Formats: sequence, structure tokens, C-alpha cells
Amino acid sequence: MAELFKAVTVDEAREMLARHLNVCGVKKQVSITETLGRRIAADVSAPEDVPGFDRSTMDGFAVLARDTFGASEGLPAYLDVEGEIFMGREAAGPIALGRIWRIPTGGMLPSGADAVVMVEHTEELDDRTIGVTRPVAPGENIVRRGEDVAAGSKVLSSGQIIRPQDMGLLAAVGVHTLEVEEPFRVTIISTGDEVVAPDQTPGPGQVRDINSYALYGLTRQCGASPVLAGVVRDDFTALKEAMEEAIASSEMVLLSGGSSVGTRDVSLQVIESMGEPGVLFHGISIKPGKPTIGAVLGGKPVFGLPGHPVSAMVVFALLVEPLLRAGRYPSSDVERRLEFPLRARINRNIRSAAGRDDYIRITLKELAGELIAEPVLGKSGLISTMVKAGGLAHIPTGMEGVEAGEYVWVKPF
Amino acid sequence: MAELFKAVTVDEAREMLARHLNVCGVKKQVSITETLGRRIAADVSAPEDVPGFDRSTMDGFAVLARDTFGASEGLPAYLDVEGEIFMGREAAGPIALGRIWRIPTGGMLPSGADAVVMVEHTEELDDRTIGVTRPVAPGENIVRRGEDVAAGSKVLSSGQIIRPQDMGLLAAVGVHTLEVEEPFRVTIISTGDEVVAPDQTPGPGQVRDINSYALYGLTRQCGASPVLAGVVRDDFTALKEAMEEAIASSEMVLLSGGSSVGTRDVSLQVIESMGEPGVLFHGISIKPGKPTIGAVLGGKPVFGLPGHPVSAMVVFALLVEPLLRAGRYPSSDVERRLEFPLRARINRNIRSAAGRDDYIRITLKELAGELIAEPVLGKSGLISTMVKAGGLAHIPTGMEGVEAGEYVWVKPF
Repeated sequence: MAELFKAVTVDEAREMLARHLNVCGVKKQVSITETLGRRIAADVSAPEDVPGFDRSTMDGFAVLARDTFGASEGLPAYLDVEGEIFMGREAAGPIALGRIWRIPTGGMLPSGADAVVMVEHTEELDDRTIGVTRPVAPGENIVRRGEDVAAGSKVLSSGQIIRPQDMGLLAAVGVHTLEVEEPFRVTIISTGDEVVAPDQTPGPGQVRDINSYALYGLTRQCGASPVLAGVVRDDFTALKEAMEEAIASSEMVLLSGGSSVGTRDVSLQVIESMGEPGVLFHGISIKPGKPTIGAVLGGKPVFGLPGHPVSAMVVFALLVEPLLRAGRYPSSDVERRLEFPLRARINRNIRSAAGRDDYIRITLKELAGELIAEPVLGKSGLISTMVKAGGLAHIPTGMEGVEAGEYVWVKPF
Repeated sequence: MAELFKAVTVDEAREMLARHLNVCGVKKQVSITETLGRRIAADVSAPEDVPGFDRSTMDGFAVLARDTFGASEGLPAYLDVEGEIFMGREAAGPIALGRIWRIPTGGMLPSGADAVVMVEHTEELDDRTIGVTRPVAPGENIVRRGEDVAAGSKVLSSGQIIRPQDMGLLAAVGVHTLEVEEPFRVTIISTGDEVVAPDQTPGPGQVRDINSYALYGLTRQCGASPVLAGVVRDDFTALKEAMEEAIASSEMVLLSGGSSVGTRDVSLQVIESMGEPGVLFHGISIKPGKPTIGAVLGGKPVFGLPGHPVSAMVVFALLVEPLLRAGRYPSSDVERRLEFPLRARINRNIRSAAGRDDYIRITLKELAGELIAEPVLGKSGLISTMVKAGGLAHIPTGMEGVEAGEYVWVKPF
């Protein structure tokens, strides 16, 4: 069965998946505080101007700018104090020629005023007269009504992921509840007749379930909701039952384990028995992570991740993380660059076979203002190598490795 | 009052705070699934070897390596099949000279076997005889007992923040519950007589509370637990009452708002009235973010953040985020480098005053494999500029700006 599939590149794998994915997240109306990291279900427009009035950005005096033209230290413009503006209140009247109002930072300008003179550029002659020692231009030291957000303008777009500043903007425009997509539910199934739960004592030939917990952490880190389905035996019926429940109750399924041919075949058979399009690829031209199954069932992604924990985590970073964080794979050059965003000098020669992408566990150091990537050696079956590592360096296909001193791109973790 | 303080650098501010901080997080015993992003309360040692037995990393045959020495395609080493090893079970007996056992990836080696021959390097003569066509060295294609983690070795250190791979390691060694620090509780108080909640309609001169929600999001993003205390009037008694409750019920307090001198003075007076050491600095030599108060009360950090949302978010990134994520400020060159980890070319001249650090809102693009940082223009009072931005570029003190085409370091968000 495995022979039907030829290893695909990461880009090919993403394209095949993207073509068949059709995941509808559950939508829900929530308050601003619950929106962090969620995708907005519909465009948000500002119901009103922010700020709703011309506002001072300095402690000083609201003026008609033309009253200050020509003012200097030597020849101040003397203006009469009309009154004082208090925070959160209107001025008692409009501004008039030759008059000024005391105003605090954030205060509302009196009607007609078009600038604010900083207190530092004034001298107080007496309670009622202020000398302005420097001219201001119209608009200086103020924020105009609607300058931050104009009423009716689109402030956030459907599908956008909400960041802290977006929450601030929602508050600013008074959109205090909105519809967002609930986090994807991701069911994590470990397979393998040798695998036991962490609270059990392994018998001879048995090991504890590492992948479920590493994948649980990765899924949570992406803002999604992991569900641990536990360990399922390498048996068609048992695995199919678990898979059916997983597909019915979640938006994504991560199968892991089974690096042996026999075990992988069970996963393949189960997925193939569950509908269209089923398995899209079996094998990616990367190291570690080659023996990966990519499938779509009912529009939902299903990944058969390698049993080796390092391999499983690398494949997660490349194929699962973008879907959980953004609902899609990177589509622009800058998004692709930001997947491996750090530029570091590798401090050891790394050989790589042509025709595949290598992902090297590294630790990061700093030398003369530059980042240095030092490879962590060790087999991809060893979780301890990921614990020692601080990131993954990408050695792209086409290169036959990198020499010590060359630059590589790194995804830190 | 404000005149007593001279503006400090970010490094000086961090040092002053670090000297007085003494926050004891609440400790709690939790299961592995609840440990992501938490700090470990005590070192973790491995109670046993991982794996607990010599393990095959390939589908193939367990052998005595010396039985394969000299084997080749032309002259295979013919060995008798003693039996088959099943996943999660012991072999029915030890290995003997001239004998091999079928073994799947992850299988337990029979006692005495010291290598595995990949199935690809064998030919099946009949059911009972296998020709090995390539020699293996002792240790090849196996993971030794304890090679991933040796019993008794320290696997995670007190204070370390748990990542997904660390969760995998905890599962591997059978540490299924452990003591971690609970997330810091951060009380967020907005001050300002002009500020109203987002679900209220602002009257003349009033604005909605932006900072509480942006800070709520930032705090959550750091893995901490924000508590919104709402808007408090610029009044000594009201603010002191709110502060006392905040200090009693949380590990950190973020006051924000009050960019006018009068308002800032109320915050200062309240903090100074609450004990030692109180206010450590008032004013940081950065832009935006200068009018910041840094204080410690009862070992807990209290920040008086600027009222302008951009300024508040910049100060959060520099002074609050490291404490929430790591419980301390960066202490090594690499940690400091990773605060602004991306190298980008700025595409516009930026002027900066000597003697202060500037933080420029930018959007990121990609050109010829490089990141390009394009400044977002706009006043620091405008939350919309943070919404447009994709990161902050650092223009260090000492430079009087940067020219278009020069490199800057960027913190993406």
C-alpha cells in the first residue's frame, strides 16, 4: 500500500491539503476579553469616530493658532485666559480671538480652537494672562475627531486573528462583544502496542506515551483545544472506532506513533476506509519526519505523524501549526520568511542529502551581536534532544549541507 | 513631586526593579497537561532509564554485529531466523551466534543483540534463512537503554518554563504530576475622569477605555492571569482603595492612564503612601513611553503606564512582558538579542534624539529574501497605528536615527 505514494515536498503537501480542507470552526458571540488569538467571523466597522472630539495631546492651552503666529521668547503673544477645561467635560464655551483655555493632556478642545500650546512654551503673567513664547500651527498638539478611527471605516477584517492591540481597538469603537471562531478541537491519538500512559509502569518492551503530551503542548501553544484520546492498539477495528469518534467530535485529528511498516499500514487502511479524499500523501521529503501521512476526511485534516517524537514535532511545526494558528498555510513571502524568522550563523558543518529539506535541532548563542546556531546531536527518537534544543534550523533542499560560518534560518522554541 | 526623578534607561529601570522584586507565585501540584508555560517549582530527576531497554530504530533484524562483518551484496552473511519480536514484548530468548530475530521499529532487542540490520539490507532466502548484504557496527540502528534519559539524571531545572517537548519528557520519565507556579495574577486599573467602559456611550469629552483591553490581551498572551479592575477616578482615596485591593489579590499591578501632570501626581502619591520601597523611577528615556512610573510594593511590581495606548504597549513589552514570561529580565546576550530577534532593513530615514531609545511601529514586508521594515506613521495616542503595525523596530540611544537601507532589530507582534 505504501508503495503507491511518492514522497512529496512540504509545499506540495500544503497545496494538496489546502485544496481539500474545508473546516468550519464553531462560531460564538464573546466579549472582548475572550477574543485573544481567535479569528473574527465577520468584518468589524467603527460605529463612531474615535476620538469623538478634538483632543489635546499635551498639558497647556487651547488656542486659535493664528493668535500665536510671530510669537517668540523676546516678543510673546499675550492672551487672556477664558477658563479651564476639565477631563471628561466640555468647555464652558467656545474659543474667541485673543483668548485661551487651560487644558490637560486628553482634554476636549473648546469649539473653534485648532491647536494647543504646550505649557513649556508659555509664561504666566498673572492668573488671567498668559504669554505664548512660540507659535503653533493649526492641528499642533491635538488629535482631531475621527483621526484614530473614522466612523464607518473597516477596522478589522473577517478571518483576522485578534491581537492585544485589536482588543484595544474594539474597546475604543465600543464593539464590546463580537462573533469569533472557537478554537479548533484537535483529537490526539497515540498508536502502538508498546505504548503505555505516563502514570503506568512500562513492562518489558514497553515505553510511555511521549507524543501525546508533546503534541498536546504544541496544540495548546497554537491556541487550539487538544483532546487526548489515549493509546489505541495497532488494530484496524480499535483504531477505526477511535478515528470515527475523533472526526465526529473535532476539527482535526493527530494520529501518532507507528514507525514500523506494519503499524503505518493500519493507519493508512483505517483512513482509506473512512471516505473521500482520504490519504493525500504518504511520505514527505524531509528529515526528520519522512514517514508522515497527510489526509482529509469530510474537509477535516488528519495527520499520521511519525512515532519518533522529534520527527512528530518537526512535522507539527511545518504542517499543523499554520493551520491551527491561522486556519491556512502562509500565502505571502513575508509570512513564509516569518516561519523561520531568525538569521543565525551555524558553527559546524552539516551534511544533507540533495532532494530533501533538513531540520536541525540547535541551541542559540550570541557572539558579537550575531546569533550562533549550534547543532544538538542525537537520534530523532530521543525527546531529550528537543529538550536541549532552542530551535530548528532549516537546511533547504538543493543545498548539500552548510559549512560552519554560513547563515541558516531558525525557528526558535 | 515629579521633579525628584530623573529619567532612567530601560536597563537602569530593570536593574532597579530586579533589586527589589520578591514575588512568590502560588505553587500547585498539577498533571502534565496543565504545565505548558508554567515555571517548575523544583528540579526534576528521571526516576528510571528511557528507554528501559535496547530498542530498534528500524524495521529489520536484530543481530550480533560481528556476524555481519564482511557481508556484501556479492557475498551475503547467511543467518538463521530464531524468531520474531513483537511490539511491547520481550523476545522469547537471547540471541546466539549465527542467529537473528525479526524486529519492528521500536521493538525490544533480544538479550545479547547489539545491532539491527535494516530490512533493505537483507534478502530472504527462505522462511528460516536471511542473507545480510551490508555489515552493521555494534550499536547501529538501535537506541541503548538509558540513551535518551539516564536514571537519576536531572532532566528539568527549577524555574524553567515548560515547553511542549518538556511535557513529552515528563511523560517519558513517568513524572505525570509535578509542582509548578500558578500564572501571575495581574490587576489592571485604568485611571482617568474622562474614561468610560467600552459598553458605555461616551459623553462630551469622554473616551472609552482602550488600555485595559490591550493590556488584558498582552497579559494573557504572556500566559498570566489578568483581572480587570475597571476605571478609577483621578482621586487619591478612590485610587488608593483600588490599589490596596489589587496588591492584596495579585502579584502585579498595572495602572494606566493619566498622561497629564495632575493625574500622574495622584498615581505617584498613592504609590508613595503604600510602603517601601515605593516609586523607584518616574520617567524612562524612551519614545514613546517616557512618562512611566516603576514601583515595588511588598516585593510586587507596580507599573504606572502612560495613558497613550501605543506608549503603554511599548513599556509593557520592555518592562512587563519579561517578568510575566520568565519571572525576571533577560540575563544573557542571547536572551537580550531574542527580545528584538528579527533583522530587517528599514525603508525610510528615521530621526531620533540622542540620549533616548526609540521604538518605531513598523509593518514587515519581504524583498529578495530579506525582511523590510516600513514605519507606520502616527501619534502614540492612536491605537489604530498599533493595529496597522506588525512589529516594533528599536533605534538605540547613541544613534541619531537610521538611514533608509540600514538594518534595525524588530520585535514582531
